[in-house]
Amino acid sequence: MTERYDLVPVGRIRSAVKEIKDAPRQGREPGLEVDVEIDSAYLDALVGVEQHPFLKIVCWLHHADRKLLKVHPRGDRRNPLRGVFATRSAGRPNPLAVYTVEVLEAAGSTLRVRGVDAVDGTPVIDIRPHFPRLDN
Amino acid sequence: MTERYDLVPVGRIRSAVKEIKDAPRQGREPGLEVDVEIDSAYLDALVGVEQHPFLKIVCWLHHADRKLLKVHPRGDRRNPLRGVFATRSAGRPNPLAVYTVEVLEAAGSTLRVRGVDAVDGTPVIDIRPHFPRLDN
Repeated sequence: MTERYDLVPVGRIRSAVKEIKDAPRQGREPGLEVDVEIDSAYLDALVGVEQHPFLKIVCWLHHADRKLLKVHPRGDRRNPLRGVFATRSAGRPNPLAVYTVEVLEAAGSTLRVRGVDAVDGTPVIDIRPHFPRLDN
Repeated sequence: MTERYDLVPVGRIRSAVKEIKDAPRQGREPGLEVDVEIDSAYLDALVGVEQHPFLKIVCWLHHADRKLLKVHPRGDRRNPLRGVFATRSAGRPNPLAVYTVEVLEAAGSTLRVRGVDAVDGTPVIDIRPHFPRLDN
């Protein structure tokens, strides 16, 4: 499999958390409030997004190690090595993060949401409605 | 925003559905059973995946229209145009699909799962555990 696909950022996370070492562990805390800032070229794609109380935000974790295939879960070396596909490790061949978020405010090109632990500046790749009934 | 990211397929969907016109509409049916075939280079990343009853499978919809920003929901022109980020349209700037699936069998490089409506040959980009409690 040698083909590759080109991912284009459509926006950016704006967060008070500036560095990875300060980010909370995924799923451990209620979830940080951040702004999802959408690039002006993609504003049309946002029409109607305010009608959804929950969204999925897909980010590209641009600092993550793409060569990582196995990890000690939760970074604890006492935990036996596991494949990254069996964990939420940021490091993985395609370092995507999929956040289920609550929309707090939608105004112009910015969505205020709760539930993203990616650091400030993280590229946003996709936004889609989250339907609790269907997604479980 | 001119940077781009390189997505590398880690596997492939093997489905009885060979063409998009034959695919069921997302969320309307219980979900098709398909095989997720992982490329041998990524087998290490699968270790432990069989411990998760539910997974998220991220695919790249390689036939989708990336220029699409607005659609008539459910393809019905009587529905007013909506931004693709407010819909599950396959066409979108980065045509990812995020499926929540039930794992039926995990053997070697192949996972048998229920809940993917992508056609045969669709590239698989990522696999991650799905935790109903945290993901709602």
